Amino acid sequence: MKDGTELSKLGEFGLIDRIARQISNRSEVVLGIGDDAAAFTPSPGRLSLITTDMLVEGIHFDLSFCDPLSLGRKALSVNLSDIAAMGGEPRYFLLSLAIPPTMTLDFVDSCINGMLQQAEQFGVQLIGGDTCSSPGPFILTLTVLGEQAPGMIVRRSGALPGDKICVTGTVGDSALGLQLLKQGEKRGSLSARHLDPVPRVLEGRALAEAGIPSSMIDLSDGLLADLGHILDLSAVGARIAAETLPLSEQFRHHFPTVTEEALSLALAGGEDYELLFTVPPEKIPDVFSLLNTLGTPVTVIGTITEERTVTVIGPHGTEISLSRKGYDHFSPRDGQ
Amino acid sequence: MKDGTELSKLGEFGLIDRIARQISNRSEVVLGIGDDAAAFTPSPGRLSLITTDMLVEGIHFDLSFCDPLSLGRKALSVNLSDIAAMGGEPRYFLLSLAIPPTMTLDFVDSCINGMLQQAEQFGVQLIGGDTCSSPGPFILTLTVLGEQAPGMIVRRSGALPGDKICVTGTVGDSALGLQLLKQGEKRGSLSARHLDPVPRVLEGRALAEAGIPSSMIDLSDGLLADLGHILDLSAVGARIAAETLPLSEQFRHHFPTVTEEALSLALAGGEDYELLFTVPPEKIPDVFSLLNTLGTPVTVIGTITEERTVTVIGPHGTEISLSRKGYDHFSPRDGQ
Repeated sequence: MKDGTELSKLGEFGLIDRIARQISNRSEVVLGIGDDAAAFTPSPGRLSLITTDMLVEGIHFDLSFCDPLSLGRKALSVNLSDIAAMGGEPRYFLLSLAIPPTMTLDFVDSCINGMLQQAEQFGVQLIGGDTCSSPGPFILTLTVLGEQAPGMIVRRSGALPGDKICVTGTVGDSALGLQLLKQGEKRGSLSARHLDPVPRVLEGRALAEAGIPSSMIDLSDGLLADLGHILDLSAVGARIAAETLPLSEQFRHHFPTVTEEALSLALAGGEDYELLFTVPPEKIPDVFSLLNTLGTPVTVIGTITEERTVTVIGPHGTEISLSRKGYDHFSPRDGQ
Repeated sequence: MKDGTELSKLGEFGLIDRIARQISNRSEVVLGIGDDAAAFTPSPGRLSLITTDMLVEGIHFDLSFCDPLSLGRKALSVNLSDIAAMGGEPRYFLLSLAIPPTMTLDFVDSCINGMLQQAEQFGVQLIGGDTCSSPGPFILTLTVLGEQAPGMIVRRSGALPGDKICVTGTVGDSALGLQLLKQGEKRGSLSARHLDPVPRVLEGRALAEAGIPSSMIDLSDGLLADLGHILDLSAVGARIAAETLPLSEQFRHHFPTVTEEALSLALAGGEDYELLFTVPPEKIPDVFSLLNTLGTPVTVIGTITEERTVTVIGPHGTEISLSRKGYDHFSPRDGQ
């Protein structure tokens, strides 16, 4: 089973059958895997939400320190995170795989198992996809469908001056975890934050259904870059207090004093998959009470301003000038 | 503009903005490109259809003989063809691109222009996607959403013994066109059939809405392989008359006598993107009258049998034993 030829013996349709046998269709799914397209009944009166993310070996993940089970889980999680950021309920997903000939069937099986584990946990069903060989990297494209009532979805464009800026969980862990992974450290909660992030699906949906956030986004490109998307689309600015940034115990253990590098990881490091959202000040108590019932930490890190600039206030009240730049796939300066 | 660095100057979000500016949202689209997910209002009482296909450079296309405009058109067409095979109406699509650093902005622009041309022609709107860099091949993953009334969709599983087997247009042209392209012939209708296939969207939908086909599939892996999917899911067999196979004038010009090679291209060559469907014999006149109004040729090529075998009857009434095998992505014997 450790042999890459297993996959060629099994064949494309064998692999599809193997995946399909693990799925049980919900009643709303009229046709799942195995026809030209999948067919399902959308819930009456609800909007359909759809998002897609491509994960490319050598760009988004490194097989030298990434186990297949986590990779499968993460591939789904990053898409679930996008539905969470809309305040939506994820329902179905499609999976496309381009598999290099050297990859073992064991690896592919583990990756799919991880994905199906995560799918079960978040109540989403695999209903279709595509498989082919790859002449180069291993590539996964996932498309997740969700839904929500029309008035409940939360956009990036609704932030207003005076709104408070909130973030769930802690920031910078994933970027620091990736640094440690590159240095050979395979275990620990920081690297786990990078390899197997938990999408804030329950939190996003609960906040949206309570009508709390004026805007919301998930942290994939880095806090300042993702906040930047909200600011651009809402035509506002922001003031962030650096000392309020939620840093994990493990992060603080690594950086006993918040150095410039630490601040840079927290503000510009990507892939935390936390939710960043803005809230009218009077609703802040609702944010804490709601997220408290879910057991999810939340922190107010700043305020939306009318002036369209971003200011980060440093530990001693000094204004720090920081690039809003996060990960840009076509920038030659960037690298994971 | 011929410089690959144009793309890195433009950046990931620049490219997304550039694409988004070319799109005008339909009223059903609540959120198009630019948020965490797209949101749209599904048509009340209709099923949602969804399909995805990944196109990988070096596997599905060869940039040495594939122009970017046609590539963009084809990437959408092959997905539209899957919605056509369900009898659905395509509505929206998502586009994910992994772009090698050596690729020019001109190339990417042309590819997207081709896709948007085809989208306009078939009434589908781009509502989201993902872009990233690729360390290897150029990769496109498209996801197309469609819809249809619950009773109207046509599955692969409905063929019954006695049903006639029909195919639109002609078969084998794309596979022959690919052979000619590999030999350096760049023009001509055969290579065009490979590079820029026309999805049978109108035909599939019209047949489905008239309640004619008992089963339907599009020809992507090859006639016998795709017929095989219908036979497997319908638990039936088929008899095909080789001399009835619809061959184009150009194909017959290349093969003045139908050699074994010609037959193999017609029966096992992939990517014709014609519709193969089964019909109760009494509805055959309806097939001809309906497709005639659309100006689309259609041919009866055989009959569904109770016995679960596939027999191809040769030109002299002899039974030909032929492999049902089409393109399998993981088979080491296959190559494009």
